[in-house]
Amino acid sequence: MTAGASDLPPLVDHHCHGVVRGDPDDETFASFLTESDEPAAPGTTFFDTQLGFAVRRWCPPLLDLEVHCPPGEYLERRRELGADEVMRRLLGSDGIGDYLVDTGPAADLTGPEELAAAGGARAHEVVRLERLAEVSADAADGVTSFLDALDGAVAEAARTAVGFKSVAAYRHGLDLAPEPPTGAEAREAAGRWLADRESGGRVADPVLLRHLLWSAARTGLPLQLHTGFGDTDLRLDRCDPLLLTDFVRAVRPTGCTLVLLHGYPYHRHAAYLAHAYPHVYADVGLALNHTGARAGEVLAEAMELTPFGKLLFSTDAYGLPELYVVGAAVFRAALTRVLSRWTGEGLWSYDDAERVAAMVCADNARRVYGLDGG
Amino acid sequence: MTAGASDLPPLVDHHCHGVVRGDPDDETFASFLTESDEPAAPGTTFFDTQLGFAVRRWCPPLLDLEVHCPPGEYLERRRELGADEVMRRLLGSDGIGDYLVDTGPAADLTGPEELAAAGGARAHEVVRLERLAEVSADAADGVTSFLDALDGAVAEAARTAVGFKSVAAYRHGLDLAPEPPTGAEAREAAGRWLADRESGGRVADPVLLRHLLWSAARTGLPLQLHTGFGDTDLRLDRCDPLLLTDFVRAVRPTGCTLVLLHGYPYHRHAAYLAHAYPHVYADVGLALNHTGARAGEVLAEAMELTPFGKLLFSTDAYGLPELYVVGAAVFRAALTRVLSRWTGEGLWSYDDAERVAAMVCADNARRVYGLDGG
Amino acid sequence: MTAGASDLPPLVDHHCHGVVRGDPDDETFASFLTESDEPAAPGTTFFDTQLGFAVRRWCPPLLDLEVHCPPGEYLERRRELGADEVMRRLLGSDGIGDYLVDTGPAADLTGPEELAAAGGARAHEVVRLERLAEVSADAADGVTSFLDALDGAVAEAARTAVGFKSVAAYRHGLDLAPEPPTGAEAREAAGRWLADRESGGRVADPVLLRHLLWSAARTGLPLQLHTGFGDTDLRLDRCDPLLLTDFVRAVRPTGCTLVLLHGYPYHRHAAYLAHAYPHVYADVGLALNHTGARAGEVLAEAMELTPFGKLLFSTDAYGLPELYVVGAAVFRAALTRVLSRWTGEGLWSYDDAERVAAMVCADNARRVYGLDGG
Repeated sequence: MTAGASDLPPLVDHHCHGVVRGDPDDETFASFLTESDEPAAPGTTFFDTQLGFAVRRWCPPLLDLEVHCPPGEYLERRRELGADEVMRRLLGSDGIGDYLVDTGPAADLTGPEELAAAGGARAHEVVRLERLAEVSADAADGVTSFLDALDGAVAEAARTAVGFKSVAAYRHGLDLAPEPPTGAEAREAAGRWLADRESGGRVADPVLLRHLLWSAARTGLPLQLHTGFGDTDLRLDRCDPLLLTDFVRAVRPTGCTLVLLHGYPYHRHAAYLAHAYPHVYADVGLALNHTGARAGEVLAEAMELTPFGKLLFSTDAYGLPELYVVGAAVFRAALTRVLSRWTGEGLWSYDDAERVAAMVCADNARRVYGLDGG
Repeated sequence: MTAGASDLPPLVDHHCHGVVRGDPDDETFASFLTESDEPAAPGTTFFDTQLGFAVRRWCPPLLDLEVHCPPGEYLERRRELGADEVMRRLLGSDGIGDYLVDTGPAADLTGPEELAAAGGARAHEVVRLERLAEVSADAADGVTSFLDALDGAVAEAARTAVGFKSVAAYRHGLDLAPEPPTGAEAREAAGRWLADRESGGRVADPVLLRHLLWSAARTGLPLQLHTGFGDTDLRLDRCDPLLLTDFVRAVRPTGCTLVLLHGYPYHRHAAYLAHAYPHVYADVGLALNHTGARAGEVLAEAMELTPFGKLLFSTDAYGLPELYVVGAAVFRAALTRVLSRWTGEGLWSYDDAERVAAMVCADNARRVYGLDGG
Repeated sequence: MTAGASDLPPLVDHHCHGVVRGDPDDETFASFLTESDEPAAPGTTFFDTQLGFAVRRWCPPLLDLEVHCPPGEYLERRRELGADEVMRRLLGSDGIGDYLVDTGPAADLTGPEELAAAGGARAHEVVRLERLAEVSADAADGVTSFLDALDGAVAEAARTAVGFKSVAAYRHGLDLAPEPPTGAEAREAAGRWLADRESGGRVADPVLLRHLLWSAARTGLPLQLHTGFGDTDLRLDRCDPLLLTDFVRAVRPTGCTLVLLHGYPYHRHAAYLAHAYPHVYADVGLALNHTGARAGEVLAEAMELTPFGKLLFSTDAYGLPELYVVGAAVFRAALTRVLSRWTGEGLWSYDDAERVAAMVCADNARRVYGLDGG
């Protein structure tokens, strides 16, 4: 039976980040509720969003407050308990058994081990390709040194990480040439980049981004690709996953598995790619948190074409422990609602619904990333 | 409580037009039910559309007829009562307290004051930029004279209007260069246009359209932009609001507020821009009228990413007083349905739903356009 | 009353294909459940899709099995009964009274007459333009011979077929120049193609594809155009029906009726074209089968802008008799659900719902294709 969210199995969150250290002030807290990178418009607050309402729906009881209590009351109680206790309470209740943590952001966030410890769960690392390039560049003293260091870093990461991630969507857009750059092209692009670059500078050159994608693809580890909705670094229409179609075809012979993250509002496009190509998988990650009360419909749209063995769960939680709780709760509520409707109308059997729930909640991710039990 | 539409506050319709004078004949009446500009296909009628059904759902009782009465019966009763009485009855029952009237169409339509009088409401003017250009061109005797007159007209409009509107989407598409044209570019474009132009000729030159947008942006008044669905003057794929992304970024320093109208079927794209950029607002205006029984879902899609303080109501009513009634009724039914579902599932509190209803129905528009009580 | 699917009239399936001869093995059977042309990903099966679940929902009872029985049991029973009996049972129960069969695929499939006989229905032929070109090329001995043969084949087909179909979306994409090629351009393109071509080679040249479209348009028969979702021969983003906008406008003076097939996930775009242009019609064909439990929502999205006199039903069934059953059952369930909701909410009258059901199920297709009773 899938009628109750409590019946769902522990989740594998195949894409999330760390949590900020210490107590965020009110403005910082609110800034994690939006993908905007500017203050809220005059007369508005980021709490008045689907994500803001979802935080107030799911988190207050874990801090001994009433459901939907006002933001001010919630933030006060949060400070009263302190960051460690809040993190312990929230992560301890999110129902997530495995975190796959993108360790790429340069911000000072908790690492996989701290997250696992706080959440009583297991953690695994997903290595962000652009970060490898930037760290390699910081230490390199020329093109050859850089490219060798990067090769080594990719190989090293492949030994311990469960997957790679690329944010090429943010840095350039997904309208990249599909084929791998030649060695000469990569050297030339690296030369240009290193010549202009100051320490910490981001990689945004499309040739280097392609070099990163193909370097990861050749390791055989799953490669996560940001697609769709995100912050204002990206241009949304350049993040349509269909822009990856030729790359999807080109990379097929390497045996690399591609995992398309988020996708929204192009999640039906991502679902099509997962339907049409055996090595493509998809989630609706971030989109469920941000669409809150609408998450059931968004998830259902993704479940039109995505084969059920190719849909994954993630929170894309970043910065606040609240976002794990909300990501998991919104997903469970959405999945339960969708499956209950389909079984209730006699279109799906209960056994199938239960089986698909197990696949999407955890089993697909275990298999794709080779986790224990996968 | 938001369970009943009757509980919703009076509406501010932030984007509508005037009403035709006199009794339209049957064919003219039907032509207002579609964005097509040709006769209905053989064997079909424009009454067999969501908008046609919505008119028959909401308007007949106001003319003492049965809900869903046949079109012929409705049109006959309409003629019997006469245009003035019909307008008085319909506008008097639409629940709209403020009309923001785009006075741009060249057609002979009622002006804001007549609309306000018939509807027992207040009216405000929104000035269409392309109309200012065309009127200025009609009176000008050269490039300098034209550009000076236009500058003056924009400044004059800014003194009395509550906002500007652009139909650049119809005239060219939204794939415009984002930056303002230089003075020399504007002069050159004006010269080309004036040389070819006959009196009344429309402005469609992309350089002049950009000149208009930036002229309006510098006044500090809100600037409405048609995006998405409209008549066959436009190419729908060139009206995707995401095409405005670079303009949205470029215009930010002016402090101008951008209001994206309609958006459908790209309303999730418009919602993203409203989410990501503080100076962007959105409605689903026209789309609700035309999707009728589906308006609840369309509105809900827009409410996924649009912050609740940035969503506005409009009817985009044009020509028929019926379209105010339907626009308001469809919106109220849609909003009530959406909020009732979310509160009913415990995802939103009743207080929040009531508060968001007040924001979307009127308060957001009052604040954005600086109306009394805003 | 439209509450029960059993109340719906017999269907006119305006776009389908033949059925494979003989008993497909398990892998072949499963391959018809997807638009992918590769094996299912490791650890997954094509049965774990909306279409796979829909087959298990609707077909087992027709073979004396329990609803939702496991795939293995179903396939075993299928073999036990034999292909002829399965076809007889399934097609005899699909509720389809007229099949419009695209005879274009080169595969060995049953023809219209066999289909009609097995289904106790009538069959009509839709001729695929690319097939005419390829057959004409196989027999030609030069450019003039080819173009003359093609002209003759189009004229001949127009005498017996009820419509033409183009798969230009697969062969090139819908980003074709809108105007007809000149005679010289067509000759040049034909020369290039014939010079390179081996027997059976597909036509993919955009000039020749345009020549085909315009040849068909000039016959006055309806022209079906694949748009949206399909197998991996196509690039989905090049199948957005809006790419046809300029062609839609250009072809208008010929009087040709255009029927946009599938459309998904761009079905709202197809609906817009059907709304805006009198000679454009639309279905959501293939999309309903493949979205299964979600078909009600997909159909409802198509019914936002498509005038009700311009929406058609099709299964796009190909290869398996199951796909007729599922296509019809999923459509009927979707339509019933949508209409029941709208009547239940008082937004539509029961009479209107019944009338629209009759239009969409059969009457629109009868009128568009000039079938008896149309």
